[in-house]
Amino acid sequence: MKRSFIREILESIDEQTISFAGGLPNEKLFPVEDLKNVTQKIFDNPKVLQYSVSNGIKPLREKIAQQYSNEGFPTKAENILITTGSQQAMYIIAKYFELKDITVEEPSYLGAMNIFKLNKLKMQGVKLEEDGIIIDAFEKSFEKTKLAYLIPDFQNPFSSTYSQDKREQIAKIVQKYNGILIEDSPYSELYFDKKNKSISKELPQNSFHLGSFSKTLAPSLRIGWIRASETLIRSIMIIKESIDLHSCGISQHILDEYLKDENRYKMHLQTIRNDYKTKMNFFAQTLEEVLPEFTFTKPKGGMFLYGKFNDLDSFELVQRCMKNRVVFVPGSEFYIDNRKTSEVRFNYSHTNIEDIKRGLELVKASL
Amino acid sequence: MKRSFIREILESIDEQTISFAGGLPNEKLFPVEDLKNVTQKIFDNPKVLQYSVSNGIKPLREKIAQQYSNEGFPTKAENILITTGSQQAMYIIAKYFELKDITVEEPSYLGAMNIFKLNKLKMQGVKLEEDGIIIDAFEKSFEKTKLAYLIPDFQNPFSSTYSQDKREQIAKIVQKYNGILIEDSPYSELYFDKKNKSISKELPQNSFHLGSFSKTLAPSLRIGWIRASETLIRSIMIIKESIDLHSCGISQHILDEYLKDENRYKMHLQTIRNDYKTKMNFFAQTLEEVLPEFTFTKPKGGMFLYGKFNDLDSFELVQRCMKNRVVFVPGSEFYIDNRKTSEVRFNYSHTNIEDIKRGLELVKASL
Repeated sequence: MKRSFIREILESIDEQTISFAGGLPNEKLFPVEDLKNVTQKIFDNPKVLQYSVSNGIKPLREKIAQQYSNEGFPTKAENILITTGSQQAMYIIAKYFELKDITVEEPSYLGAMNIFKLNKLKMQGVKLEEDGIIIDAFEKSFEKTKLAYLIPDFQNPFSSTYSQDKREQIAKIVQKYNGILIEDSPYSELYFDKKNKSISKELPQNSFHLGSFSKTLAPSLRIGWIRASETLIRSIMIIKESIDLHSCGISQHILDEYLKDENRYKMHLQTIRNDYKTKMNFFAQTLEEVLPEFTFTKPKGGMFLYGKFNDLDSFELVQRCMKNRVVFVPGSEFYIDNRKTSEVRFNYSHTNIEDIKRGLELVKASL
Repeated sequence: MKRSFIREILESIDEQTISFAGGLPNEKLFPVEDLKNVTQKIFDNPKVLQYSVSNGIKPLREKIAQQYSNEGFPTKAENILITTGSQQAMYIIAKYFELKDITVEEPSYLGAMNIFKLNKLKMQGVKLEEDGIIIDAFEKSFEKTKLAYLIPDFQNPFSSTYSQDKREQIAKIVQKYNGILIEDSPYSELYFDKKNKSISKELPQNSFHLGSFSKTLAPSLRIGWIRASETLIRSIMIIKESIDLHSCGISQHILDEYLKDENRYKMHLQTIRNDYKTKMNFFAQTLEEVLPEFTFTKPKGGMFLYGKFNDLDSFELVQRCMKNRVVFVPGSEFYIDNRKTSEVRFNYSHTNIEDIKRGLELVKASL
C-alpha cells in the first residue's frame, strides 16, 4: 500500500515551492501567546506529566460535551473519547469495523480511505454532488453496508456542503436500516455564514461524530475526539488503549486551560473564519482571472476549493507544476480506483495572497 | 476482548487505595521546572504548532540516533521513527505482522499481549527464568514463528534481566533463521548498577528496538520510538501515518529542547536510578519482614518486583486486597491463558516509603 500523496509531498517539497496541497491551517493565526500562557499554568500541577486515563481527561471531555449540548445535541463527558487527532478517531473506528463493507462519498478524504484499506474495509463509493451525496444511490449502498463515512460540512476534497434536506434524508436512511454513520466534522467550525446541524444529532445511538482541534487551534497538539453513545464508546476503548494508552496529556491540559475562556475561543474562531473567507474569495476571483478554463463552485466554509479543468489529466499536470514549483492534489487521489480525472483540489488557507496569485499563474504556465 | 486490568484499576481506584499496580514513575522526580522552561522556548517558533512529518522531527531523531551510536550501535536519524509512546510502537509493528505467529516470554507485558490479540498474532509462550528466556525452547518456537517479542532489561512483569550469554545466543538464533526480534526496552536506562547491551545491536537488519521517554522523563508527553533498518522503517511508515499522522509536535519539541543539555538529562537519570534502587531495597526488605511467605529475586533495575506466594490464587487475593485498599497485579494477567497462579507483580517506583510499609501490611492482613 502506498503512502499518502499529500504526506509525501509535504515531506519532499522545498521552501520555494508554493503549496496548495496540504490541509494546513494558516499558521499566522495560531494563538501562540495565549497557548504559551496557558501552558505555563498547567505545569503548576506535576500530575499533568503522569500517565492519564485512556478516554481523556474529564474536564476537557466535559467542555467538548457542553458544546454539543449547547447546540441541542445532549451529550455528557461519557459520550466523548479523546483521540490523537481525528485521524486516530477514524483509525479506531475502522479497526472496530475491520473487514466490513462501508459506503463512502466519492471523492473522499484520502487519509480515511487509506485507513479503510489498511483495515480491509470494502469501500463502496457513491457520487457526491454540490448539495451532498446522491440519496437514492446512498440508500441502495447503505442497505447492504449499514455503515457509512460522510463529511457533510465543507467536504475534503470536494468542498461541498450537505443541504438540510439531504441531512434529514440520510438520518432517516441510517435509522431505517439501523446502521451506523461515521460523521467526520473537522471543518464544521470554519463556516463562512452559518453553522450546519450535524446529522448525528438525529442519530444519537447510531453515529460516531468526529471533531478536532487541528483546524481550529493547532494541529501539532494532535487532539481530536469521538462523540458516540456510551455503549459505542465502551466498545472502542480497548482499541484506543491498545494504540497509545492515551493521547498526549500536555496537549489535553493545554486545551482544557485554553477553553476555560470561552469568549477568547469564540473570537479566535471568528478570526479564522474571516481570514479563510477572504482568502477563499481571493482564490476564487484569481482563478476566474488566471484560469478561466477551471470550473468550480465557491465553498461555504473549510479550507479547500475543488473544481475541474476541461479534458486534461490532473495527475500529469501536477507533475509539470512541481517542476515549476507549485503543487496541489490531483483528483485521482480521492477516488477508490485512482481514476484519471481533470479534477483538482486546492487548499487556500495556508498560502498568502501574493503566493495565491503567483502560484495560480505558475499553474497556468504549466498547462 | 477485555480491557487491561491495570488500566481499569488505574481508572477506578480511589485516592485512599495504595497502589502497587500500575507502571507509574515517581511523579516527585519529574523535572517540572526544566520542562516548564524549555516549553517556554519552543513557542518562539509558531511552526511548532503546525502539522509535522510522520516520522518525527529530525533534531529529535538525530539525538536519539546519537545515543545509540554512542553505545556502539551505529544509527542515523533515518533509522528512527518517533511514536506516540512505545505502546504505539508495538501497535504499529503488530499491525505490520498481523495474523503471524510470534514467540513471547511468559509471563509478558499485558499491553503487548492485548495488541497482539487485537491484530490476531498467534502467541507462543516460552518460559522466562531469572537470566532470561529458556534458550532451547526459544529456538524451537522461533524456528517456526521467525518473530519474537522480548523485554531483556528488567522485564515487565517478571523483573528479570537477560545474561550476556543468553543475549548472544538469542542474537545467533534470530540470525540463523533470518527472523525478526522486537526488543522492547522502556526500562533500560533505569539500571541500578550497569547498562546492558541490547540484543538488537547484533541484529541491525533483523530487529525493532523500542525505546520511550515515559519512564525517564514524563509519560504524558507520549513519546517513544522505534530503531530499525531504513527498509523496515519505510515499511511501517504507512501504518504510523494512518494511525495519527504524527506524534504530538509540542511534546517532540519539548523533548528536543530538553535533550540539548546532555548533562542535565544524565543527572536526571541518575536521580531516578538512585531513588528507584533505594525504594526497591526498602520494598524487598519490607517484604522479607512482613511477608516472609513471598519468594522473589531482587531486580537489577526497572520498576517492578515479581515473586510468588505458596499455594494461593493471587487473583482472588487481589480482590480481597482491594477491599482493604491495597492493589497490585496478579500474575494470571501476564499469561496468555490467564492461568491460575500464586504469582504477583509489585510496582515500587510510584509509592512512598510509608505507603510501601502500610500497603504490604494490608496485603498481609488480606491473606
